[in-house]
Amino acid sequence: MSFLDHIRACNAHDLSGFRRFELDGHCVGWVRHALAEALPGVDPGFVVSADRLTVVPEIRDFEARSALLDHAAAYLVECGTVAALRGEYYAVTPRWGAEPLARLDRAAVAAFGIEAYGVHVNGFVRDGAGGLQLWVGRRAHDREVAPGQLDNMIAGGQPIGLTLAENLEKEAAEEAGLDAATAGRAVPVGAISYTMETPAGLKRDRLFVYDLELPPDVVPVNTDGEVESFELWPLDRVAESVRSGGDWKFNVNLVVTDFLIRHGRLTPENDTDYLEIACGLRR
Amino acid sequence: MSFLDHIRACNAHDLSGFRRFELDGHCVGWVRHALAEALPGVDPGFVVSADRLTVVPEIRDFEARSALLDHAAAYLVECGTVAALRGEYYAVTPRWGAEPLARLDRAAVAAFGIEAYGVHVNGFVRDGAGGLQLWVGRRAHDREVAPGQLDNMIAGGQPIGLTLAENLEKEAAEEAGLDAATAGRAVPVGAISYTMETPAGLKRDRLFVYDLELPPDVVPVNTDGEVESFELWPLDRVAESVRSGGDWKFNVNLVVTDFLIRHGRLTPENDTDYLEIACGLRR
Repeated sequence: MSFLDHIRACNAHDLSGFRRFELDGHCVGWVRHALAEALPGVDPGFVVSADRLTVVPEIRDFEARSALLDHAAAYLVECGTVAALRGEYYAVTPRWGAEPLARLDRAAVAAFGIEAYGVHVNGFVRDGAGGLQLWVGRRAHDREVAPGQLDNMIAGGQPIGLTLAENLEKEAAEEAGLDAATAGRAVPVGAISYTMETPAGLKRDRLFVYDLELPPDVVPVNTDGEVESFELWPLDRVAESVRSGGDWKFNVNLVVTDFLIRHGRLTPENDTDYLEIACGLRR
Repeated sequence: MSFLDHIRACNAHDLSGFRRFELDGHCVGWVRHALAEALPGVDPGFVVSADRLTVVPEIRDFEARSALLDHAAAYLVECGTVAALRGEYYAVTPRWGAEPLARLDRAAVAAFGIEAYGVHVNGFVRDGAGGLQLWVGRRAHDREVAPGQLDNMIAGGQPIGLTLAENLEKEAAEEAGLDAATAGRAVPVGAISYTMETPAGLKRDRLFVYDLELPPDVVPVNTDGEVESFELWPLDRVAESVRSGGDWKFNVNLVVTDFLIRHGRLTPENDTDYLEIACGLRR
């Protein structure tokens, strides 16, 4: 493995297996051809042509579009593409910050290839010698996604109706037991994006990345069962662990690689792939 | 203007006006169709087909390829595409870090659409209140490129035969009068890339970005005539100046935008284009 391999894994996809999903004239997602062709049979509100899936002109407001997508989500459970709905909704938009055109259950987001947003927070501590240590979470073994793998101190998907700051505060409390004042000190430092084909569809994830420096005496404590334990690792151990293997949740490899770049631990001198890595973290 | 406009300006190009330039089976550049069709008449070492420009099989080592490109560079001067050669050579490679297949005069790099590398250093000072101030250089009014515009404290193209660290040390001395020990404290923090069509051809620039914290009592002094004066600006002034207008050298807008993002001055809350900006800085 190498740092670049993780980026390649997160960007492996072939769009020729998908067609555009349009709402209100905007491309909002990508759907597998077989699913696109099945959907008009699930609900006559869907209209399919050779190059796109869209909806009938009568369905033109947020609630009507969302009800249609609810039918589709139920069908995805019925046919086994999705194990179960989550009851948590993501915004369906042409781009971040635009007015949502609909909402969609989180479990069905990849099947529709909707852009999914999230927040990831690198929690770190400065050691006495000017070096950094990163808080590393070990995900609980009973998790459906990435059981037992390593994770950021705080990370979570972005539900519709919350601001990024509200979501960050909520996740900081649930995942790391941190209060709102501490969460509010997280500094936004950039974004990661990748497009990854999975059995469920197309994961088009865009992650808002934050750094949060903690005083040495603050220890994160998980409160929602997602993380089993936290450890403070020196950057060398973090770098070696990400570089060499499959210990980290697939997308957290990218967030941590970005941290290693921004803090000068991964350099043009110690990795000949530096340029492809730095540019590949946002596609 | 907006932050995103600068990124769009640096990425405006239409590849349909160009064809691939291949050496040794690798695509190393992009050449305008008219130039590609003219080159076999300039030197029979060039071979042109409908979709690519390449060289005859007999030309197969570094020196022979470089001599051929010297002929082409002289032709570009003759026909006025290039005002004058620089006598400074860039590496022609399929990717950063690969063994160079040839060298090419810097003035002819855009005409061949070769990837051009450079180093840019954000020189900054911490103020007493925890804020940052950026050293801003005003380019001399007699410069051919971006006269009178604002620039990074240190920036320079990457000539063949120097390491990044050697080049950074050289540029730090020439452009800011800083010694090797100070230059050596610059921390690599990422990369910027863009592809921009210009009258000369296709600028495919990849910039290695560094942050260099200076003590408050160190003042950069230009020694090579490229910079007329240096000023220390608070980040708010930097942000407003980049956002609103055309005061900065075209590509330095991107380097400074990246600095504003990494240091939490440009945020998802204060710019709705945040995600496109953060992802658009590396294409």
